[in-house]
Amino acid sequence: MRRSNLIQAFLPLAVLWSLPAGAQTIYPINRAEILAGAHFDLKVEFPGVVATDRLRVTVNGRPAADVFGRAPDYIEREDGQAASSVMLRDAALTAPGVYTVAASDGEHSASVTWEVYAAPTARRARNVILFVGDGMAVANVTAARILSRGIEQGRYRGTLAMDTLPQMAMVGTSGSDSIITDSANAAHAYNTGHKSAVNALGVYASRARDSLAHPRVETLGSIVQRDLGMAVGIVTNTEIQDATPAAVFAHTRRRADYLPITDQMLESGASVILGGGSASFLPQGTPGSRRRDGRNMIDAFRQQGYAFADAGESLASVAADPNTTKLLGLFNLGNMDTALDRFYLRQGTVSRFPNQPDLTEQTRAALQVLSRNPAGFFLMVESGLIDKANHPLDFERSVYDTILLDNSLKVALDWAGNRNDTMIIVVPDHTQGIGIYGVVDDSRPGEMRDRVGTYAEAGFPNYPAADARGYPPSVDVSRRLTAGYAAFPDYYETFRPHLEGQNVPAVQQGSGGPYVANPIYRDQPGAMLRLGNLPRDASTGVHTVDDGVLRATGPGSERFHGFIDNTLVFRAMAEALGLGR
Amino acid sequence: MRRSNLIQAFLPLAVLWSLPAGAQTIYPINRAEILAGAHFDLKVEFPGVVATDRLRVTVNGRPAADVFGRAPDYIEREDGQAASSVMLRDAALTAPGVYTVAASDGEHSASVTWEVYAAPTARRARNVILFVGDGMAVANVTAARILSRGIEQGRYRGTLAMDTLPQMAMVGTSGSDSIITDSANAAHAYNTGHKSAVNALGVYASRARDSLAHPRVETLGSIVQRDLGMAVGIVTNTEIQDATPAAVFAHTRRRADYLPITDQMLESGASVILGGGSASFLPQGTPGSRRRDGRNMIDAFRQQGYAFADAGESLASVAADPNTTKLLGLFNLGNMDTALDRFYLRQGTVSRFPNQPDLTEQTRAALQVLSRNPAGFFLMVESGLIDKANHPLDFERSVYDTILLDNSLKVALDWAGNRNDTMIIVVPDHTQGIGIYGVVDDSRPGEMRDRVGTYAEAGFPNYPAADARGYPPSVDVSRRLTAGYAAFPDYYETFRPHLEGQNVPAVQQGSGGPYVANPIYRDQPGAMLRLGNLPRDASTGVHTVDDGVLRATGPGSERFHGFIDNTLVFRAMAEALGLGR
Repeated sequence: MRRSNLIQAFLPLAVLWSLPAGAQTIYPINRAEILAGAHFDLKVEFPGVVATDRLRVTVNGRPAADVFGRAPDYIEREDGQAASSVMLRDAALTAPGVYTVAASDGEHSASVTWEVYAAPTARRARNVILFVGDGMAVANVTAARILSRGIEQGRYRGTLAMDTLPQMAMVGTSGSDSIITDSANAAHAYNTGHKSAVNALGVYASRARDSLAHPRVETLGSIVQRDLGMAVGIVTNTEIQDATPAAVFAHTRRRADYLPITDQMLESGASVILGGGSASFLPQGTPGSRRRDGRNMIDAFRQQGYAFADAGESLASVAADPNTTKLLGLFNLGNMDTALDRFYLRQGTVSRFPNQPDLTEQTRAALQVLSRNPAGFFLMVESGLIDKANHPLDFERSVYDTILLDNSLKVALDWAGNRNDTMIIVVPDHTQGIGIYGVVDDSRPGEMRDRVGTYAEAGFPNYPAADARGYPPSVDVSRRLTAGYAAFPDYYETFRPHLEGQNVPAVQQGSGGPYVANPIYRDQPGAMLRLGNLPRDASTGVHTVDDGVLRATGPGSERFHGFIDNTLVFRAMAEALGLGR
Repeated sequence: MRRSNLIQAFLPLAVLWSLPAGAQTIYPINRAEILAGAHFDLKVEFPGVVATDRLRVTVNGRPAADVFGRAPDYIEREDGQAASSVMLRDAALTAPGVYTVAASDGEHSASVTWEVYAAPTARRARNVILFVGDGMAVANVTAARILSRGIEQGRYRGTLAMDTLPQMAMVGTSGSDSIITDSANAAHAYNTGHKSAVNALGVYASRARDSLAHPRVETLGSIVQRDLGMAVGIVTNTEIQDATPAAVFAHTRRRADYLPITDQMLESGASVILGGGSASFLPQGTPGSRRRDGRNMIDAFRQQGYAFADAGESLASVAADPNTTKLLGLFNLGNMDTALDRFYLRQGTVSRFPNQPDLTEQTRAALQVLSRNPAGFFLMVESGLIDKANHPLDFERSVYDTILLDNSLKVALDWAGNRNDTMIIVVPDHTQGIGIYGVVDDSRPGEMRDRVGTYAEAGFPNYPAADARGYPPSVDVSRRLTAGYAAFPDYYETFRPHLEGQNVPAVQQGSGGPYVANPIYRDQPGAMLRLGNLPRDASTGVHTVDDGVLRATGPGSERFHGFIDNTLVFRAMAEALGLGR
């Protein structure tokens, strides 16, 4: 340790821990913020095999075994490689403060600094509801307001529910590996307060080969069940194993681990689980099953006391039953359908799953069941198809599902009413690059692009007024919003909404070949080929690093202002709940 | 009036006032919000010639002449056309409340409703500083943070000055004529509290043929001088006659009226005027002059007691002189140069105007002079080249000028310190559609687009750490941010910053012909032709309707939260100053 201390005396920590070859890697990483009492796995990776008597891991100068009350495991050759690791599963630190963790192999040393924090006040929120608009950009919200509320002489006829929330902040979404996050790592940050890497859920991305063996960090859902006896709810319109809902409970380096994620869901103790994704529950042999075994996971949930619903009607009646305190609802083999497809176009899988509930109905059912827990609840509601529509440049579908998010938020705001005990947050997990730059007018002459009015020539679109659901009943109007995406593969632009089903901008040319513009749109009226600015292995548009907009209300929400890191969303929820004290 | 009253009883006003052919048009328009005591021109346009004895204009049922204390002018044939108008210049309403203005030609009637409001409390802010980031999108701010502060393992090394402001709101920027605004109409809303049309400054866009004859609305700059004896300052790095600075004082339907705008500037009484645009001041015959007469407007300002500066050094010494209370500074014939050009690339007009001050120096000088007024001041500072760089898809220049805006904001925050008497706002006037979707890495193989890393492959860019000014000294690094624009003309994408001068994406093919990709970039390494989604008469990218992000601090700034219309920026400033009571 002498040399390392010498180095430490002269070099800032930031240089130390990022020393390249030869240095140890420590998880949690430098500048990690850790809730007091929350569980985490301490892992140190050494670049080579190190004899156990040469290893030293200290916390603020004391041996780690002393600080954590037990000795870390020593793995001489991790995954059979010529490299040793040290792992202490389920560690925790209960005293707030600054912790410097140093690891040495007798020759090289590395260190990281953590901040351990506790809520500054006692519990202020009984419940926390986190709405995630997956991939929701500013343009999605603006368009939702135009379509749902209308605009006249430059003034909107009304505001969205999210427009009324009193608190706002810009959120940085970058991960530990890259400026650009995916939904796994982004939701991981909200649920754990830690930064990790693309594809990771509830774990730091270490060198472990088994996706389930990486160093874990505890999720809010786990902490509030353990510490406060709160109930946890997970609502989405994607597959329930998809990144955002899975982040509430899962621990895997690989978000595509749908079957292990389903197992972890069963172990998670979550009280309400509503979404698509029955494919991972149904035993092998059942049509649509993704399983490789004969296990029926719906039965497994039933055996643990969960009521089950598979359609909107059964969901409502099961949730209304005062005895229901645990509820599983699966409404589609895969992702559920977008609001535009379900209510107006009847595309997608609507004919196969005609009785899918609306995200508003799922939210209402979840609130009904969760509020039976006298200790309060944490509910995560994802409008997940905003992103899944933005990816294939299908702006209209993304906007309808932004309205859907807002409608669901309205359900929660109405439920919370004047209770003043519920913190409600609505936030994207990351953004996509979109801009609404004009109005395309079919009555204009010329090529489609020449029919786009900009500035004064844009005027106002002529969508019909929204119906009782809050959506315009028709999206294929003669003067419609024109939005552009900042990043795309080669595709054919038609300047029209995709009434025939979700846009598929690009298709792969041969196995492993490049993605090219989807020829099915080539002969559509006015279609023009547009060359992309993405690598040719990209099939769709991609996420952006641009800050997201968080809006919030309720006790503890005043923590949100200015610019915040996405990890602060976890911290603010933890503080509102008085955790870590 | 009987028939109109009958109609009014059965139809909502919104239908009434928008009755097409045959109906009158009334300015200010329906739903206008008018500060009590602020001056405005009431104009009613009739579709045909109407005899004066058939005309009737009422306010809450009383004749307009009674309400305003004098009779409106009757113009039988406006601009010689077969259509009558009624105009009452410099009207004002001092009592807050709802006003319904009805106009009838004896046969047809139309009406609008206004809200007249006053500040709910006495004056709370001694000073107001409005920073406008012209065309600033979320992506500009995120990139400014990455370049200026750095990011490491997903956490920024620091925050921008604007990130620290406690209040935030999303701003709707649409005008009365279109969802998409330009900078004139957008700044008009901030300065007057009224919505108008593209190209309009301080006027409603009526049918008048003379751009200076349209119905006026008073600007905040005028009101605070008249009512409170405050000083007014205007700082920009564009031409001082450009839309955003001109909106502080000008009244014209045509933002390109640079010479009349210069005359109006002289009449405006503004104490500090700093920017580019000496071309409109210098007498005809002087190299670079835009004037068509021999008048030297700099001399005209001098005769009215203005000190004059034409470079950074003279600006500092003139501003430091305790006797200087009126200051004109003109540092370029046209627009000043971007921070990237001035400090690092020495492109643009830097060799011709080597001593241009920085926007931070202009801000400091303005504060020094304006704070000599014991009655307080209103200062508008525009970082105007963000938009002028975004238009030609020149992302790097737009980001450097976003840092410039933030540096200038920092000057104001430091000046305001703990005074707690200064409201400070920073806001775009409108947005552009941009998304930062990856990092391009020169070391990757293949075409340029294939060298763009997305998600985990983006990693982090390798810009050098910012220098003392807050900018990375080099922008042409091997791993750099890749941003896409949502709307563009045909252009050649090079995936590189434009070191040789600002990008010129498209050029016109013959006089009046379409804009095509600028061939000077065709043979640059890796350049690819990208077909645009804009009409072929568009030379550059365009504005978007996507909400802008407002951030604010100081007394009265708590008015900003949730979603607001751009007219509320005026109203909040007026309220902080206790106006209208």
